[in-house]
Amino acid sequence: MEAKLVVKHVLLAKFKDDVSLEKIEELIQGYANLVNYIEPMKAFQWGKDVSIENLHQGFTHIFESTFASTEGIAEYISHPKHVEFANLFLDHLDKVLIIDYKPNC
Amino acid sequence: MEAKLVVKHVLLAKFKDDVSLEKIEELIQGYANLVNYIEPMKAFQWGKDVSIENLHQGFTHIFESTFASTEGIAEYISHPKHVEFANLFLDHLDKVLIIDYKPNC
Repeated sequence: MEAKLVVKHVLLAKFKDDVSLEKIEELIQGYANLVNYIEPMKAFQWGKDVSIENLHQGFTHIFESTFASTEGIAEYISHPKHVEFANLFLDHLDKVLIIDYKPNC
Repeated sequence: MEAKLVVKHVLLAKFKDDVSLEKIEELIQGYANLVNYIEPMKAFQWGKDVSIENLHQGFTHIFESTFASTEGIAEYISHPKHVEFANLFLDHLDKVLIIDYKPNC
């Protein structure tokens, strides 16, 4: 039951080819830091694609944030710290996909 | 540290328009049931897209399975119960995207 009390915000990204590894690390750190500024954002994790099925459609990174509600995600999206970071982040991406869901087991 | 000991297997799906809600529920149940047959598959959760940013690119559902290692995912992919289910499942999808990652915080 508890799992239904959270909403996951999942972002898939493909960085542009000319973005350095250092810049990518800096952007990931900037994403992680949003937890410290945006109250409804309860947790954050990320990883690089390690899939072997070749169905990742070019996406290289995945970012998962956890919220208590869809209202929390809406508050996050419009938060000035998120807006500032998102503009910077999206400038460095070739592709982005975002899906939110309430986990059921 | 513990978070690095797992690998997440994330599948995004868009069901074909002519697939009934009953069939979708049956397929989700079939996906969930794989946990009972495939030892390396440690956990499963799923949800419907509830995002408001319109960046979900048509995907309607997300499925997340947890494994102890990338070798566990390879074992899962080639497991007869998975092959049987995947053939049935993919028949009902318009779009699929799969990405695996080791979560970092």
